Amino acid sequence: MPTTTWNRHHILSLADFTPTEYNAILQTTASFQEVLSRRTKKVPTLQGQVVANLFFEPSTRTRSSFELAAKRLSADTLNFASATSSMTKGETILDTAKTYLAMGCDIMVIRHTCAGVPNAIATEMDRLGERVSVLNAGDGQHEHPSQALLDLFTICSIIDPVNPRLELLKDKKIAIVGDILHSRVARSNIWSLTASGAELHLAAPPTLLPKLFADYVNDSGVSELNGKRKLFIHWRLEDALRDADFVMTLRLQKERMTAHLLPSLREYHQMFGITRAKLDWCKPNVKVLHPGPVNRGVEISSDLMDDPEFSLIQSQVTSGVAVRMALLYLIGSGKAV
Amino acid sequence: MPTTTWNRHHILSLADFTPTEYNAILQTTASFQEVLSRRTKKVPTLQGQVVANLFFEPSTRTRSSFELAAKRLSADTLNFASATSSMTKGETILDTAKTYLAMGCDIMVIRHTCAGVPNAIATEMDRLGERVSVLNAGDGQHEHPSQALLDLFTICSIIDPVNPRLELLKDKKIAIVGDILHSRVARSNIWSLTASGAELHLAAPPTLLPKLFADYVNDSGVSELNGKRKLFIHWRLEDALRDADFVMTLRLQKERMTAHLLPSLREYHQMFGITRAKLDWCKPNVKVLHPGPVNRGVEISSDLMDDPEFSLIQSQVTSGVAVRMALLYLIGSGKAV
Amino acid sequence: MPTTTWNRHHILSLADFTPTEYNAILQTTASFQEVLSRRTKKVPTLQGQVVANLFFEPSTRTRSSFELAAKRLSADTLNFASATSSMTKGETILDTAKTYLAMGCDIMVIRHTCAGVPNAIATEMDRLGERVSVLNAGDGQHEHPSQALLDLFTICSIIDPVNPRLELLKDKKIAIVGDILHSRVARSNIWSLTASGAELHLAAPPTLLPKLFADYVNDSGVSELNGKRKLFIHWRLEDALRDADFVMTLRLQKERMTAHLLPSLREYHQMFGITRAKLDWCKPNVKVLHPGPVNRGVEISSDLMDDPEFSLIQSQVTSGVAVRMALLYLIGSGKAV
Repeated sequence: MPTTTWNRHHILSLADFTPTEYNAILQTTASFQEVLSRRTKKVPTLQGQVVANLFFEPSTRTRSSFELAAKRLSADTLNFASATSSMTKGETILDTAKTYLAMGCDIMVIRHTCAGVPNAIATEMDRLGERVSVLNAGDGQHEHPSQALLDLFTICSIIDPVNPRLELLKDKKIAIVGDILHSRVARSNIWSLTASGAELHLAAPPTLLPKLFADYVNDSGVSELNGKRKLFIHWRLEDALRDADFVMTLRLQKERMTAHLLPSLREYHQMFGITRAKLDWCKPNVKVLHPGPVNRGVEISSDLMDDPEFSLIQSQVTSGVAVRMALLYLIGSGKAV
Repeated sequence: MPTTTWNRHHILSLADFTPTEYNAILQTTASFQEVLSRRTKKVPTLQGQVVANLFFEPSTRTRSSFELAAKRLSADTLNFASATSSMTKGETILDTAKTYLAMGCDIMVIRHTCAGVPNAIATEMDRLGERVSVLNAGDGQHEHPSQALLDLFTICSIIDPVNPRLELLKDKKIAIVGDILHSRVARSNIWSLTASGAELHLAAPPTLLPKLFADYVNDSGVSELNGKRKLFIHWRLEDALRDADFVMTLRLQKERMTAHLLPSLREYHQMFGITRAKLDWCKPNVKVLHPGPVNRGVEISSDLMDDPEFSLIQSQVTSGVAVRMALLYLIGSGKAV
Repeated sequence: MPTTTWNRHHILSLADFTPTEYNAILQTTASFQEVLSRRTKKVPTLQGQVVANLFFEPSTRTRSSFELAAKRLSADTLNFASATSSMTKGETILDTAKTYLAMGCDIMVIRHTCAGVPNAIATEMDRLGERVSVLNAGDGQHEHPSQALLDLFTICSIIDPVNPRLELLKDKKIAIVGDILHSRVARSNIWSLTASGAELHLAAPPTLLPKLFADYVNDSGVSELNGKRKLFIHWRLEDALRDADFVMTLRLQKERMTAHLLPSLREYHQMFGITRAKLDWCKPNVKVLHPGPVNRGVEISSDLMDDPEFSLIQSQVTSGVAVRMALLYLIGSGKAV
């Protein structure tokens, strides 16, 4: 592992991440990608430590990814799923967290349908003067830092597999397409990708854009929110995709339909679904990302999703384990000292 | 680990536990508390052994506590939850247990809504001449031995952290408050705490006291059930709390309300909920315990629960892992010989 | 472990298994049975490899058996149960499998209610040029290879515990009784047992026989389907049981009743349930098997099930872990090269 100075105790949001921190994660992840290419994909780093996956919102892929990352670092894991929990017995979320703290957990990976829950738990853990770290695995429509970090790693390591680093994104054009309004993935990606110096273009139907952003859109349908961070909002997909190096599509929850935010899935696909034809607007070697699970034929056409020339979707999942190993490692071995 | 002679094969009930056995558990638990304070909280004692958590009644905290205890002893664990089991396929509980026996499990940790299930399984395992141990993790309204043992350890180690032992409780006054009638925790605690020579005072509304006990209550609302074991029953909280060294509150199942055993949660809290004001009746350095999960503002006031000067609730959870390590160790390494 | 040449990458069906392959599995299983008789029942063979149990159909015993087998080979395990999965989020089964592939799983153990799903996943994994192996843990009414292999091992090791091998079954008479129509267990057993040179007799009410088979039944109620493979179909239990060395009963799903395939469980038991009286038709030292879970008093009488002189049901469960260790070992260490 590279020697990095890592001081952050919890990972809750990317809002205040520094370039140094991004680079520490990218570099550590690259080391773990190398470990994962060996025959024995396991290291003893976190032996004897306990990683508790507290998933108050059901999840299979993110939970499995964190569980596997923890096991490959030789940590013990505990899984908590709210369905079978004492949440139904009237206990508060903080009390549940304190119980796992008292049991001796070292790292809590927390997912919850409400924004702010991981922050609240981290604050309480700190108040108790304890050494437990909290890792936000998705909270409501707030943030999903590990997803954005694996997106960042996937993109950077396409550009330079040997030495992925934040600076590689300078002046790249990246489009995020789809349900920005409800996406914690987008919210985290906006922080990391604008921090990299990339030009970030969001495209969505007006009903799926945050009001804050929508208001900024000017007559030509474009807006620069911030002088330093290059963030642009579009209502027309073509404007966002023009000359893009990377296109990130977002999952569309089918319940948006019944909430009358969308006319039909078919119309959505026609206007905002990514297809080979629409990729013609982008740079020739454009790559497509999606956080998964994908609604084939809605956010992206089925054949494009499976085309390794364009799709990075499988690489994202693979990077996910390595990024989460890096996060657990940086947090957990900080504790070691 | 201290060298103790341990002969008990199953842990089903505390009814016939001897002071020697209690002290073996207290002493072994203290050793594991020390292990848990090290950086690497794991010992190889039960490597290659399999601990199966057969939870026919849902539970998160007890199951997690046993799972963590097993993993810290390097055992492999299997989790069984009845919801996804073949119980719905018409198999008997004994057949399920025999299946796990045949798979080669070494220790079965069993929770069931019906009293006596762990005993029945243990009897069947013995009949088959097998070396599997059964650990009762709560059966109906019968017993919950590991909870009572962690309560015992928590109390003893407050009095003497270096050498917690049964004798420390001699002449201490301990109150158990709340739904005694439905509490397997109380039933186990009655055995362990009266065995210690402590004076045990139970307080509950008449509808939440076992009929057997209620009949014993004399005109002044007090009863000594047994000449040797000092057990007293009270209908008035103040009588139970007067000069108490420890107050143990019990969880109140909210379904007791709908069963017309209680007028309202608010009235219950006013009469039997533990608050700072009511602690004035106790000794000045009184400590409060609760098996969790707590209904804040019902069994205990929210601020008191969080006050480390009085509340031992977090210590109980921490002791829980160490006590369960001790139980698995004493049972499992007995097997080793 | 014996040195065997093993080339099969997936285990999906027994249809094309060779005697050499059967014997490799029997021999490897015998070695693991020996490991399981030691104090430390664990070997480091698959350390660092990941076995994912993808159970799209709920199961406790088969999943636990595979999980334990994997852990005893020191593999890391991931459990996936469809209830909490993103299947409900619109992802296809192949996409789910590809996600676990991308996470770096080495072996996928797959159960699904639809026949052919493990094959489809294996084909997709091969198409992606990947090194992941697929193990069919039961697919619809198609096959359940590991169950048939544990049945084979159980039978062979009764005849020669030291050197169980396929040839031991030559000229033995084996009866399979019950719901052949819906049984993936029977379908796998038909392949393995006829491959052994045993005479295989199927007995079931006409409504629970595959149409293909039923048509072959001649006037005397007997049919030889295949010149080389000795397979006979009977409508009368007595004809199947006469002089049998082994009787395998199949689980009867109670929902067959409501589908009007059976008059009543009681009548079924009277006609096809195995009892001591009916065993008089068999060879004196006949043994009875059942894949479990058993409906006591339906497929088999309760006392017979528990009689170790006749019942091999517990041995089957024990063999199950060793057979699954053998399968994971043969597949997994093939990968090692």
